[in-house]
Amino acid sequence: MEKKPINVAIAGLGVIGSGVAAVIRAHESEGAPIRLVKILEVNTDGPYAKPFYAQFPGLFTTDLKEILNDPEIDVIVETIGGRGFSKTLIEEALNHGKHVVSANKDLIATHGEFLLEMARNSEKHFLFEASVGGAIPVIRLMENYFSLSDVEEVSGILNGTTNYILSEMDEKSVEFEEVLKEAQAKGFAEQDPTNDVKGYDARYKILILIYLITGKWVPIDEIGVEGIDNLELSDFEYAERMNCKIKLIAYFSRQKNFMDAFVMPLMVPRDHILSKVGGATNIVTVKGKYSDEISLIGQGAGSHPTASAIVSDIYKIRETDYSFNPPWQDHPFTLRPFSEYIFKHTLRIDINDQPGIVGDIGSILAKYHINIYALEQLPQYHHREGNLEKTVFHLTLEACQEGIVRKAVEEINNAEYMARPVFVLRELYH
Amino acid sequence: MEKKPINVAIAGLGVIGSGVAAVIRAHESEGAPIRLVKILEVNTDGPYAKPFYAQFPGLFTTDLKEILNDPEIDVIVETIGGRGFSKTLIEEALNHGKHVVSANKDLIATHGEFLLEMARNSEKHFLFEASVGGAIPVIRLMENYFSLSDVEEVSGILNGTTNYILSEMDEKSVEFEEVLKEAQAKGFAEQDPTNDVKGYDARYKILILIYLITGKWVPIDEIGVEGIDNLELSDFEYAERMNCKIKLIAYFSRQKNFMDAFVMPLMVPRDHILSKVGGATNIVTVKGKYSDEISLIGQGAGSHPTASAIVSDIYKIRETDYSFNPPWQDHPFTLRPFSEYIFKHTLRIDINDQPGIVGDIGSILAKYHINIYALEQLPQYHHREGNLEKTVFHLTLEACQEGIVRKAVEEINNAEYMARPVFVLRELYH
Repeated sequence: MEKKPINVAIAGLGVIGSGVAAVIRAHESEGAPIRLVKILEVNTDGPYAKPFYAQFPGLFTTDLKEILNDPEIDVIVETIGGRGFSKTLIEEALNHGKHVVSANKDLIATHGEFLLEMARNSEKHFLFEASVGGAIPVIRLMENYFSLSDVEEVSGILNGTTNYILSEMDEKSVEFEEVLKEAQAKGFAEQDPTNDVKGYDARYKILILIYLITGKWVPIDEIGVEGIDNLELSDFEYAERMNCKIKLIAYFSRQKNFMDAFVMPLMVPRDHILSKVGGATNIVTVKGKYSDEISLIGQGAGSHPTASAIVSDIYKIRETDYSFNPPWQDHPFTLRPFSEYIFKHTLRIDINDQPGIVGDIGSILAKYHINIYALEQLPQYHHREGNLEKTVFHLTLEACQEGIVRKAVEEINNAEYMARPVFVLRELYH
Repeated sequence: MEKKPINVAIAGLGVIGSGVAAVIRAHESEGAPIRLVKILEVNTDGPYAKPFYAQFPGLFTTDLKEILNDPEIDVIVETIGGRGFSKTLIEEALNHGKHVVSANKDLIATHGEFLLEMARNSEKHFLFEASVGGAIPVIRLMENYFSLSDVEEVSGILNGTTNYILSEMDEKSVEFEEVLKEAQAKGFAEQDPTNDVKGYDARYKILILIYLITGKWVPIDEIGVEGIDNLELSDFEYAERMNCKIKLIAYFSRQKNFMDAFVMPLMVPRDHILSKVGGATNIVTVKGKYSDEISLIGQGAGSHPTASAIVSDIYKIRETDYSFNPPWQDHPFTLRPFSEYIFKHTLRIDINDQPGIVGDIGSILAKYHINIYALEQLPQYHHREGNLEKTVFHLTLEACQEGIVRKAVEEINNAEYMARPVFVLRELYH
C-alpha cells in the first residue's frame, strides 16, 4: 500500500531552516512523498526568509497555534535554535501529536532527557540526526547499525569552525587571534565565538553521542573541556616535529566499570585518520570491539548539508512507526575523574631564561617519577624583553596519569623563572 | 513487549563464518537477544571450524535439511562463498521461511536480482551489508539515510588486497610482482589473486551499490574494469610528482539521462580523502546533491569486521518486519559508453630512444586536438639493452574524451620506436 506524503512545517527560516525548505521543495518537485505546508517565521525580511516569502507568502505564518492545530501537519522541524522558545515549541508540538525534528544540539544536550521522555509518552518521533556532525549519519548508525555494547571508543572532530582555525594556523603559520578574525570576516566563525573556540559546541555533541551509546545523560559539567584559544604557533611547530597534528577532539571511551569523556585539543599522530581531516570538515571515528575503527567524514555544518540530515529524519518518520526499544544493556558505570586519565603530555614552558632551568624542571618531574620522552628548545624562540632573556621550549612526557602531571606542573609554575604558567597539550595513550 | 531472541544458523565455518560464530557467542554470553543454534559444516577439521567443534560439537550438522526444517531457526547466515551450493542454500532457506544474511558479493552481483525477488515473494529478509566494504555500513546508509535520488556520485576503494599492494608499492618502492608475493605469504592476498588484482571483486561491489542507489542490476560486463597488475614503480614516481596517489577506484556517477561506472586505477590528488586511505583499509565516498561528500572508512575484510556487519544485519532482522518499499524513483537511464567519459589521461611511453620521438608523439596528439598538460622524461629511466637505448617517460593530457585518446594512443602504438604499447592511467575530471 502506498503511504501518503508527509506534511512538514518549518519553525524558523534562518540558514538551516531555509536549507530544509529548499531541499523539501526540490524533492516535492521531483515527485517525492514530502510536502512543505507551513513556515513559522516572524521576520520575513531576513536574508534567508525573504526570497522564500517573495515566492510563497501563503506558506508563512507567525502563529504557532496555526501549525499545532493543523491536523494535516505531521512533522515540525525546529530550526530556531537556543533553549527558550525552541523548547516550548517542541513540547507543544509533541503535546499536539506532531513528530519533531531538530538540529539544536545545545537544547538536546540540555533538555534531551526531558524531551525524549515527552516524545515517548506521546509516541511521537523526536529525531536530531543533524545535531551531531551535520550531514554525517552518526546518529542513524548508532540507532541502526552498531551493536552498542561493542562500542569501545568514539573520537571525533565535531566542530567545523575550530577545525578550520586549527588547519589555518597550521598551514599558514598565523596566530589564533588573526585566523579567528579572518574566519569571522568570512562568516566561518560567529561574532561571539565562545561556544566554538572554548569547545562547548563539541561538548554538546559528544554528550548526545554518549546518550545514544549508553542511554545515560551525563551532566554536562562533568565532561572536561578545553578550548583552542591558548594554542600558539610554537605548539604547531613542535607538533609537526613530533609527527603530529593538533586537533580539537571530542572523546568518549569505556571500560568495564567506568567511562572517559572530554573535549580537548590533542596531538594526533599524522598517520591517524583524525589528523587527515582539515578545513571545516568533521569526522567521527567509532571503535567497536569487532568492527575495528569506522570513520565517518563529511560537512558538519552549512545550510544544505545540515538540511540533508534533517530531511533524512523526516523520511525516517514517514517510514518507521514510533517505537522505543532501548538498545543499551543497563550497566552501572560512571565517568572516571579526569585526574585518573592517562595521556602523553606535552608541556610548553615559557621562561625568563637563566642557567639551570632544564635541570630544575627535570628534577621536579623526576620527583614525581615522570620520564621525559622528548625535549626541544630552539634558538628562534629566544628573544629579549627589556633586560630579560626569554624563551619557550616544549617537552613531552612519557605516558602518565593526568593528576600526577598536574602536581608536577603546579610545582613548576611556582618557580620564579616561569614567565607564564605551563601550557599542557595531550596525546591519547592506549 | 519484549521480543524473543533471534535464533541463527551459520552455513560454512571458514574465516568469516567463524567470526560470526565468535561474535554471536560473545553477545549471547553478555545477555544479548541472539542465539547460535546450528552450524552447517562438513569439514570440522578445518583451521577455523576445529576449535568450535571441540567446544560445541552439538551445534554442528552436515545436513542442510536439519536446519531448513528446524522451526526454531529464524536466520541462516551464508558464509560458504562461491555461486554454487551457496545459491541453492539461500533459495532453500527462503523457501523454508528463513531470513538470510550473506557476505557473498560474487553471488549477489550475479544472482542478486533473482534472490531478492525470491525473498520478496517469501516476505523474508535477504541482507548483505558485509558484501560491500566489510564493516563499513554503506548498505545500511543507502537503505536508511541517503535520499537516493540525490546521490550523484559514489567513489570508493572497495578492495583491501589491492589497496594494500598499491600502498606498499608506493611506500616501499617495490614492484608489483614482489609485493604480491609478499602479500600472498602474509595471507593478505589469495594464491590465485585474479579476482582482486584484476578489479573483479571491486566490480561486484560497485554493481551492488548501483543496485541499491538506482534499483537497476547492471549486466556486469558493461562495467569497465582494469586491474592494478600493469602498474609499475615509474607510475608511482610520476604520480608523486603530480601530487597524486594511485588508487584502484570503483566509481559510479549519474547525470539526468545516463550513468557512468567503472573500476580502474586512478591518479587521485593527494588532498582528496580517497588518497589518504592506505593499507588494506576501505573507503566509500558518497556525493549527494545537498549533503556534499560523506566518506565512510573502515576495515573492508577480516573475520571480525565482516562478522560485525553480518551480526548487525541479524539484529536488523530481529527489529524490522520485512517490507519492500522501493526507494528509487523510476528513471530511464543507461550506462554511457566508456569512450564518452572524460578524464585527464596520463600516458606511460616506453620507447627505443631515437631523436624526434617527443615531437612525433606531440604531432599525433595535436592531430586529435589533444593538449599536453605535463611531460617528464627523467635520466634515471634510461638504460641500454643490447645496442638499443631505451627509456620511459610520462605525459599527462588535458581533460579529453576517452575515445579520442584511444585513437591517438592506437596511432602512437603503431610507431616503430615504441618498445611496448602505451600504458594509460586516468584522473577524474569534473
